[in-house]
Amino acid sequence: MDDVGMLPNTTFSNSTVLSAADLHSTAKPITCKAAIAYGPGQPLVIEDVLVDPPTKNEVRINILFTSICHTDIGAWVVESVGEGVTDLKVGDHVVLIFNSECGDCAYCKSEKTNLCEKYRVNPFKSVMVNDGKCRFSSKENGKPIFHFLNTSTFSKYTVVDSACVVKIDPIAPLNKMALLSCCISTGLGAAWNTAKVQPGSTVAVFGLGAVGLAVVEGARSRGASRIIGIDVNSNKLAKGQTMGVTNFVNSKEVDKPVHQIIREMTQGGVDYSFECAGNLEVVREAFLSTHDGWGLTVVLGIHATPRMLPLHPMELFDGRRIVASVFGDFKGKSQLPHVAKDCMRGMYRGKRRQMASWEEVSVEVNDIKASTFPDFKPLVDKEDQIQWKNNEIGVLTVRGAMKSLTKIGTKIIWYHLV
Amino acid sequence: MDDVGMLPNTTFSNSTVLSAADLHSTAKPITCKAAIAYGPGQPLVIEDVLVDPPTKNEVRINILFTSICHTDIGAWVVESVGEGVTDLKVGDHVVLIFNSECGDCAYCKSEKTNLCEKYRVNPFKSVMVNDGKCRFSSKENGKPIFHFLNTSTFSKYTVVDSACVVKIDPIAPLNKMALLSCCISTGLGAAWNTAKVQPGSTVAVFGLGAVGLAVVEGARSRGASRIIGIDVNSNKLAKGQTMGVTNFVNSKEVDKPVHQIIREMTQGGVDYSFECAGNLEVVREAFLSTHDGWGLTVVLGIHATPRMLPLHPMELFDGRRIVASVFGDFKGKSQLPHVAKDCMRGMYRGKRRQMASWEEVSVEVNDIKASTFPDFKPLVDKEDQIQWKNNEIGVLTVRGAMKSLTKIGTKIIWYHLV
Repeated sequence: MDDVGMLPNTTFSNSTVLSAADLHSTAKPITCKAAIAYGPGQPLVIEDVLVDPPTKNEVRINILFTSICHTDIGAWVVESVGEGVTDLKVGDHVVLIFNSECGDCAYCKSEKTNLCEKYRVNPFKSVMVNDGKCRFSSKENGKPIFHFLNTSTFSKYTVVDSACVVKIDPIAPLNKMALLSCCISTGLGAAWNTAKVQPGSTVAVFGLGAVGLAVVEGARSRGASRIIGIDVNSNKLAKGQTMGVTNFVNSKEVDKPVHQIIREMTQGGVDYSFECAGNLEVVREAFLSTHDGWGLTVVLGIHATPRMLPLHPMELFDGRRIVASVFGDFKGKSQLPHVAKDCMRGMYRGKRRQMASWEEVSVEVNDIKASTFPDFKPLVDKEDQIQWKNNEIGVLTVRGAMKSLTKIGTKIIWYHLV
Repeated sequence: MDDVGMLPNTTFSNSTVLSAADLHSTAKPITCKAAIAYGPGQPLVIEDVLVDPPTKNEVRINILFTSICHTDIGAWVVESVGEGVTDLKVGDHVVLIFNSECGDCAYCKSEKTNLCEKYRVNPFKSVMVNDGKCRFSSKENGKPIFHFLNTSTFSKYTVVDSACVVKIDPIAPLNKMALLSCCISTGLGAAWNTAKVQPGSTVAVFGLGAVGLAVVEGARSRGASRIIGIDVNSNKLAKGQTMGVTNFVNSKEVDKPVHQIIREMTQGGVDYSFECAGNLEVVREAFLSTHDGWGLTVVLGIHATPRMLPLHPMELFDGRRIVASVFGDFKGKSQLPHVAKDCMRGMYRGKRRQMASWEEVSVEVNDIKASTFPDFKPLVDKEDQIQWKNNEIGVLTVRGAMKSLTKIGTKIIWYHLV
């Protein structure tokens, strides 16, 4: 799909805004289509589900735009609200976040983290906090269908905790704002909040997908003097240049390690590197691409592998640091509305990627079923088979390109939709 | 040996201060005893060596106090200075640092690091920068004997670059100031400069040796509310308490992982943990002992192992961070004199550990030769045999409990004096 920049003078459409009258009653379950995975090794299927009304502190959402992505992203309209929800009302335009902000826990009250005790990223939290139950059930047999990653967006309607719902300006274009639900926020925030990129600094971004390009934009908007993009696809150069990439390295077309090339280009290494590829070899190259003494690597990729970090403990003594960034270290409910306003003002460039109305997504999911993503495949031995929660009943993961993980004891097990 | 606190009202002795007249001529080589390792697998031997006069930017030092330690530590008096040395003169009392501060390189000019381009920690830099030659040679056959870790302190006289020499107050007691050469500076600085321990914060220190106890002192002096000491030896409790340890865990006497115990003690984990053991299992426990969202682990131990960091990349997404600290992130020449003054004022508690005059050390080295440390033993396969630099000539490593490492290509090889 085409790139559509969030540029100045873009006319924002209101065509997707529904009136409150269009919305369903709060009292009744809603029947709608959803994409369901019944377990590892099972294809996604489109079926009718019942979506119960929201209970305490919950919100039911009418999904207008969602996306095939490594994380749930989308923008929606509030269909109904449950008891105790004071900051959202029917008809509000919202962005859902998989990394919540409840505002009350020790994490939310700390300035040092954007993690939240209540609804942080946990692929095994599959029921609602309020009553430990599901809001989804099968239309056919009434059995519960489980939630996934706090949002469960591959459904025409979903129910989420209000801590995962960010109200945005109603005149913002929802099809673009949906990108704030993950890739744009993650990338911008990684540069702004996690790395705190300084004016005049040098940056390397490994992987120029949606997240990587948002990192580029974040670094450019903070005044980085040099932004080196690294990808295996040279077509990314043109896209990268529109966002601020000043130099490009195709890592498949070079005859020495990328970190050597970058060190030569930058008098010893970049100040910041960002890993947006989900590949451990890339993590190591990104780490070694930074300047010793002060280089910082930010990991953004999801690493669906049982392998550990390929770094030697003594390498830390060279003064290179490595951290990860969840949702760009943004506290979603507090900070995302401001980012949305800035985007509307054209302050930041965006990239439209695989964005579609829910109906279009449904088609995509059917395509997925038939071809692209046939099923979950474990990346590890069968002995390590995931303890798929309640798999005797069926699991709903209304989500795009699913990647899932679990820890069994101290052992980390990864599953990946390939 | 006994602990000797650097406490208020301690009387500082001047008995070790030599007058300039006691010192040797600058023009001639000096013959003296040194402890020499001729290569891996070879015992240390005490032999007569010739120590040449210092050349440009170098200083020849009369060693008064040194130590058996994981790093070279000691305090000395300047015997002679070479051309271009302006900040040091004959008779100055000095502390030698294995991690230099030349003041001129990009690293020294950066506020972000205490690494120095010229004389940073590099076990394979075995000659002087000025002319690529050694200042040590065998009295018996004239063959060069190589330098080690910038200082080469297991000799009655040594020659070092002036970037590795810190001038301290002449009334400071050299037998105590020697500790600033590594353990006290490393530990205090790790708490102050690397972790930046905040008032009221919680701290776990893994390994209560000289470095660990200095970390405790650093954390206490910065107002940490709780300092948990972890060691396999319960005798460390009493020592730790004198420095500021508020709780003690003997990791051999508990029935669950230490990180679980610490998390239970601290409502989710400490703000900072310090690994002072040189053991990767301890690194992992220290990492997991910190609070998710903001915990910081500082690695201080030397990890003489081919194993990589036992951390999964996705664990970084819990918001825990891990860094290492070299020499406590102090810029030695700039900052150490102030620390020395504070120590003299009794601001910090110290611990005397295996400190001895050079003559006593000689005896210890003889003991080592006979018993404790018979030789270097590789920790890895023989196929990975270290490329011992110039081993056809002989290697001087005038140093205590030597640990050495090398990288061959991308492979990291470790050797360890066991």
